[in-house]
Amino acid sequence: MPPPTIAQQLAAKQREISVAEFFERNRQILGFDNPQRSLLTTVKEGVDNSADACEEAGILPEIEVEITKEGEERLRVSITDNGPGILRKEIPNVFARLLYGSRFHSNRQARGQQGIGISAAVLYANLTTARPAHITSKVQEEEAAHVLDLVIDTQKNQPRVVSEDLVLWDRPHGTRIELVLKARYVRGRQSPYEYLRGTAIVNPHARIVLVEPDGTRVTFERAAQELPPMARETLPHPYGLELGELGYLLKATRRPTMGEFLSKDLAGVSPRATKEVFERCGLRASNSPGSIQGEGQERLLTALHEVSLVAPSAESLSPIGAMLIKRGLRNVLGELRPEFYAPPVSRPPKVRGGFPFMVEVGLVYGGGLPADQSVQILRFANRVPLLFQQGACAITTAIGNLDWRRYGLEQKGGSGIPSGPAVILVHVASTKIPFTSEAKEAVAEDPEIDKELTLALQAAARHLRTHISRKSRREFASDKFEIIQRILPKLAEKTSRLVGKPIPDLTPVITRIMDVVNVETQLLSEKDRVRVPVEVTNYTPRPRVLELFVEIPPEEFAVATFNPAPEGTEPALGRAWWTLPKLVPNGRTKLEVAFPATTEVEASDLDWYVAGIDESHVLGADPLPGDWDVRLPRTIVEAAEAAAAESAASGEEGEVDYDAAESSAHASDEE
Amino acid sequence: MPPPTIAQQLAAKQREISVAEFFERNRQILGFDNPQRSLLTTVKEGVDNSADACEEAGILPEIEVEITKEGEERLRVSITDNGPGILRKEIPNVFARLLYGSRFHSNRQARGQQGIGISAAVLYANLTTARPAHITSKVQEEEAAHVLDLVIDTQKNQPRVVSEDLVLWDRPHGTRIELVLKARYVRGRQSPYEYLRGTAIVNPHARIVLVEPDGTRVTFERAAQELPPMARETLPHPYGLELGELGYLLKATRRPTMGEFLSKDLAGVSPRATKEVFERCGLRASNSPGSIQGEGQERLLTALHEVSLVAPSAESLSPIGAMLIKRGLRNVLGELRPEFYAPPVSRPPKVRGGFPFMVEVGLVYGGGLPADQSVQILRFANRVPLLFQQGACAITTAIGNLDWRRYGLEQKGGSGIPSGPAVILVHVASTKIPFTSEAKEAVAEDPEIDKELTLALQAAARHLRTHISRKSRREFASDKFEIIQRILPKLAEKTSRLVGKPIPDLTPVITRIMDVVNVETQLLSEKDRVRVPVEVTNYTPRPRVLELFVEIPPEEFAVATFNPAPEGTEPALGRAWWTLPKLVPNGRTKLEVAFPATTEVEASDLDWYVAGIDESHVLGADPLPGDWDVRLPRTIVEAAEAAAAESAASGEEGEVDYDAAESSAHASDEE
Repeated sequence: MPPPTIAQQLAAKQREISVAEFFERNRQILGFDNPQRSLLTTVKEGVDNSADACEEAGILPEIEVEITKEGEERLRVSITDNGPGILRKEIPNVFARLLYGSRFHSNRQARGQQGIGISAAVLYANLTTARPAHITSKVQEEEAAHVLDLVIDTQKNQPRVVSEDLVLWDRPHGTRIELVLKARYVRGRQSPYEYLRGTAIVNPHARIVLVEPDGTRVTFERAAQELPPMARETLPHPYGLELGELGYLLKATRRPTMGEFLSKDLAGVSPRATKEVFERCGLRASNSPGSIQGEGQERLLTALHEVSLVAPSAESLSPIGAMLIKRGLRNVLGELRPEFYAPPVSRPPKVRGGFPFMVEVGLVYGGGLPADQSVQILRFANRVPLLFQQGACAITTAIGNLDWRRYGLEQKGGSGIPSGPAVILVHVASTKIPFTSEAKEAVAEDPEIDKELTLALQAAARHLRTHISRKSRREFASDKFEIIQRILPKLAEKTSRLVGKPIPDLTPVITRIMDVVNVETQLLSEKDRVRVPVEVTNYTPRPRVLELFVEIPPEEFAVATFNPAPEGTEPALGRAWWTLPKLVPNGRTKLEVAFPATTEVEASDLDWYVAGIDESHVLGADPLPGDWDVRLPRTIVEAAEAAAAESAASGEEGEVDYDAAESSAHASDEE
Repeated sequence: MPPPTIAQQLAAKQREISVAEFFERNRQILGFDNPQRSLLTTVKEGVDNSADACEEAGILPEIEVEITKEGEERLRVSITDNGPGILRKEIPNVFARLLYGSRFHSNRQARGQQGIGISAAVLYANLTTARPAHITSKVQEEEAAHVLDLVIDTQKNQPRVVSEDLVLWDRPHGTRIELVLKARYVRGRQSPYEYLRGTAIVNPHARIVLVEPDGTRVTFERAAQELPPMARETLPHPYGLELGELGYLLKATRRPTMGEFLSKDLAGVSPRATKEVFERCGLRASNSPGSIQGEGQERLLTALHEVSLVAPSAESLSPIGAMLIKRGLRNVLGELRPEFYAPPVSRPPKVRGGFPFMVEVGLVYGGGLPADQSVQILRFANRVPLLFQQGACAITTAIGNLDWRRYGLEQKGGSGIPSGPAVILVHVASTKIPFTSEAKEAVAEDPEIDKELTLALQAAARHLRTHISRKSRREFASDKFEIIQRILPKLAEKTSRLVGKPIPDLTPVITRIMDVVNVETQLLSEKDRVRVPVEVTNYTPRPRVLELFVEIPPEEFAVATFNPAPEGTEPALGRAWWTLPKLVPNGRTKLEVAFPATTEVEASDLDWYVAGIDESHVLGADPLPGDWDVRLPRTIVEAAEAAAAESAASGEEGEVDYDAAESSAHASDEE
C-alpha cells in the first residue's frame, strides 16, 4: 500500500465535534471565564430557568438561592423554586444535555431561549470538581420527589444518571438544583447579590431569597401580587424576514395552499394584503407552498416587503413599563436622590428577522450622583440584568455614539461613554434577543436595534437637555432676583435716609428689571399624601391674565386632587387647566395638586405650561405646546384683551397701583 | 383520558435543538450581525482555513479573494488557495456541517480551532440568498477537480449535495469556495482590505490577492520565502488542569499504567517528578489509570500542582517575533513616522487549563501620530487580526486597567483607553485561545492571560516612560542651550562695544551654566547604508575622560560597522564600548555606527550608556547599568583620576585653556 498522500493525512484527522465537547473547551463563551463570573452565570441560569417555569405555569415565583463554602475556591450553589416541577423522564435532558429545551422554538419573550444555560452550569461543575449535579423535582400530581445525580457525557452530549431515588419533599411542587463548582463569592459589582437585586426590581411579582456563604440572608420581598401579563406566542412577521428563512417556512408549513400560509403562518398579513401580495408576485392563493421555489420565493418576499402590513404586535413582548423603570432606578439610587427623573421612554415594537422587539429607556440626573465619573449604565434584556461584557454591547455602543454634549453631559470628543451625574437604564425586549455569545451578557450590533436604541436615547436625552437648560435659566434668574430684592431696598433705604425723604415704592423698578412671571413648584412628601404646591408671581411691570396648564401621567391624574378645581380637564390625557386671577405687578397666586402617599409621583412627572404671555417672560413653565388643542374660553380671551388695554392705558412706563396688587395677592392666598 | 397536567404540557414542548438551527437563529454569535461584518467574517473564515491548510501541507500560501457585486446588498465572494485540496468524501462535511474539523482535537496553534467558521459562512449564504455554496477542490494525485454545490440541512446539521461534477482545473492542487450572500463592501476600518493587510503583515510567507467589487486588484506580495517553523503538537501540561479534565484524560488514555500515563500523556512530567507525584499522592506507578477515581484524582491533581515540572514548551506556539511586530507596526503607520519604537516585548510561554499561551507587545510613540485621540490598539490572536468587539476583549481591558499616566500618556481617571500619539500592538498566541464567542473577535477575560498581558504591557510602557522622560529632559536642556548660546554672545558683544573693550571668551561662563555632557545621536537612512553618527560635547567647565557604551540587538550588531573601532565588544549581547579622547570644556568628539541598508534598525534600537561622570551631568545617554559587568581598563581609571586631579588643580572656578579645548575637538573631528 502506498503511503498516504497529504490530502489523505489531513482527511484522516477530520472528526465530528460534540457540542458538549466544544463548550467544555470553550466554556468562557458560556460565561464561565473565571471563578467569580462562573458563580454569577450559574446563579443566573438557575434563577432565569426557575422564573420562566413559574411564569409559564402561572405561579408567582418564590426562588431561593443558597451559596455555601465547600473548600478552597469551591462553592455549593443550590437554587430552589416553587415551579410546576419537571417530569422524571425530562429531568436528565433538561439539566444535562446542551441544546435541549422548550423555549427555543417558541416565538415569545422568555429569559431562556437557547437550551444551553443550566446544562452549561452542570458541565462546568463536572469539569472543575468532578461532582454530579444533584436534582430534586416534584410535580403536583405525584406523591414523592425524584432525586437524580447527573453528569454529562461530553463526547456524546448525553445525560448520564449516576444515581436516582424517590424522597418525600415538604412542598407541593418545585425543583431544586445543587451544584458544587470552582467559584469565588464576591459582594458588590457583578455579584449574585447585584444580579438578584436587579432581577427583583424588574420582576416585582417574584420573591427572591439569597443566603450568602457567611450565612447572611437577604430577602427581596414581592412588591406586586400579580404576574405580569403572559407574553403570547406570535407568528413570524414578514418584515425583516430573509429569503432563506422564508424558504424554511414554506418547506415546513402544513398549510395546503399559499392563501392559508400567508394568513395563518405569518403575522400581520390581512386578507387585503394577501390579495395584493399575490397580485404583485404573480402567485395564486391556491398554489401549494412546497411548489414555490427559487425565483418565486424571491418575488414573494419582495412583495411581502412592499405591501403595507399590520404592524407587529407587542403581545409576545413583556416590557418593564414606565412605573417599574422608575422604581428600578429609585431602588438602585437609594440615598443619592437625583434631582431629575426623565419620563421613561418606551418605543413601539419593531421587527427584525421576523422577531418583534422593543426598547425602553430611563434616565435620571443630578442630586447626589457623582458628577466626575462616567455615567452609570444599567442594561437589561428580557427583564434580566446584564452585568458583564458592557463594552461589547450594542446598548453601550448606542450610548457612546450619541453626542451627549448637545444634551448637557460631558463627553470627550463627542463620542464614548459620557461623564456626569446621570444613570441611564436601557431594556431590550424581544422574542429573540441577538446576544453576542451564549453567555447572554451583551446585545449584538444590529442596524434595526441600533436605530431604536438611538431614538429612545435621544428622546430621554432631550428631556435631560430641557431640564438642564431650565435649571440654568432659573439659576441665572434667581441669582439676579436675589441681588435685586436684597440690595435694591437697602440702597433705597440708605439713600432716602441721606436725603431725608420717605422710602419710595420699589415695585415698578423691581418688576421692570426682572420682567418675568415666575412659576415655582415644589414636591412635598407627607405622611398621608404627596403635595405639589404651585406659586405664580408676576414680576413684570404690567398686570397679567394667564392660563396655567398641567400634564400628569393619566394613572396618577386619576387619583389626583386639585385646589382650586381646574376649569377644564382631559383625564385620558392627564391634562388640567386654570385661568388664574388677574395678577398685578408683584402680585401672586397659589394653587395645589395632591396625590395619595402611595403614588410614586416625581416632580418631573408634572409638566407645567402657561398661555397668555410671551415665552421669554416666563420662568418655571413652558409655552403651551401646539398639540394641546385647548380652546381658550372666550371670557379669558376677553380678559386678556382687557388687561392688555389696561396696560396700554397705564402707559409703557407702567405706573402700577401697589395696594391693588397686594390685595389681589392676598385674595389668592386665601383661596 | 384526563387533560394533561401543567408539568406534562411543559414537558411536551421540550425538544432537541440542532446546532445548525441554533446558529442559524443566533448567527450574530458567529460574526454575521450585519451585511458589512458578515462579509468580513466570510473572508476571514475562508482565508484562515486556506492558510492553515497550506501550512499543514508545507506549502507557501497563495490566496486570492475576489468580491463581486451580485445585486442589491448581494455579493459573490470567492476564495481560492494553492493548498493540498480536500478529498471528495470530506468536502461536504468540511464546508456544510458545523462542529466538524481537524484542528479542534489537536494541541497546536492554528487559526481555526472550532470546526465552525467556514460552514457558518455557508449557512449564512444559504439563509440570506438561498444559494448553495459552490466548492471546487483538487488534490495532486487526481486528474480532475471535484465541483460540488452544497447546502446545510439545518434541522439535522448535515450537508446536502445539490449537484456534483468533475472538471479540469488549471492548477495542480487547491481549493476554491464561492458564496453568494447578503453583504456590503466598505473600504477602511473593519474591511476585508484591513483584515488582509493585517494578515499579510504577520504572515509574510503568504501571498495574498484581493480583487474588490470595483475591479481594484491589491496584491500583498510575499516578503519571506520560508514557512514559519511549524508549531508542534504538544501534550496537555498539568499546570492549570482542572479536576474534571484530569478525569477525562484518565478515562480516555490507552496507557496500561499510571507511570506511563504521567510520562507519555502529559507534558513536563520528568521521571523524577513522576516519582515525587506518586510519593505525595500515595498512588503507584503500576496502578491502572481507569482505577483512579474521586478522591484519588483529587490527590493526584494536588500532587501534580505541587511538584516542580518542566516549564511548558513553546514548540506548539508560533509567535510573531520582534522583527515582524516592528515591520507590522511600520506598515500600518506608513507616513506617520513615529519618533519611538519600544523594543517589542515577548513574554515566556505560560499554561492555562493545560494549554500553553504567550503574549507579545509592540508599542510606538510620537512623530505624526495623532496626539488628541485615544491610542490605536492592534489586536492579534494566533496571527489573525481581530477587528471587531474591541470593547469585549481582555487585551483592551488589560490596557485600560494600566495607569498610563505613570508612563506618560493621558488617561481620564487613570483607567480606560489612554489618549496620546501611540499605537499598541498585542498578540496572544495559544493552542487554544479563549475567545468570547464563536466569531473569534475578542479574547475572554482570564486571570492567567490578564497577568501576562499586564506584565508585557508594563514592560513596553516602561520603555515609553524612559523615552518620554529623556525627551523632556533633552528638550528642556536644549531650550536652555539655545538661549544661552544665542543670547549670551550678543549680550557680550553689545556690552563690550558700549564699554569699548574686546569681547571676552564666554566658554567658562557657558559651560558653567549648562554643566552637562551632551550625547547626540542621529539616524540617517542613505541609499546603501544606515548611518548612526554620535556627537559627544563637553559643556561642563572641567575636562572629562569618558567611556561610551552601546547596546544593539545581536542580529543587527553582527552586520554593524564601527568608526573608530570599539575598544571592546561582546557580540553575543550586542555590546561595544569606547574610551573617548579627553574632552576639554566645549570640546567635542564624534563616532559612528553604520548598518547595511537592508537592516531594519531604528534609532531606538541603540541604547547608549556613559561611565566616568555623574548621571545628572549627562544628556542623551544613561549611566552604565550594573548588569554590564565591564571592567574599566586600568589606563582609563588612571586617566579619569588624572583628569579629576587636573580639574582640581585648575580650581573650582575652572579657568580653562580655550585653545586646547578647540584643538582637542578638532583632533577628534579628524578621526
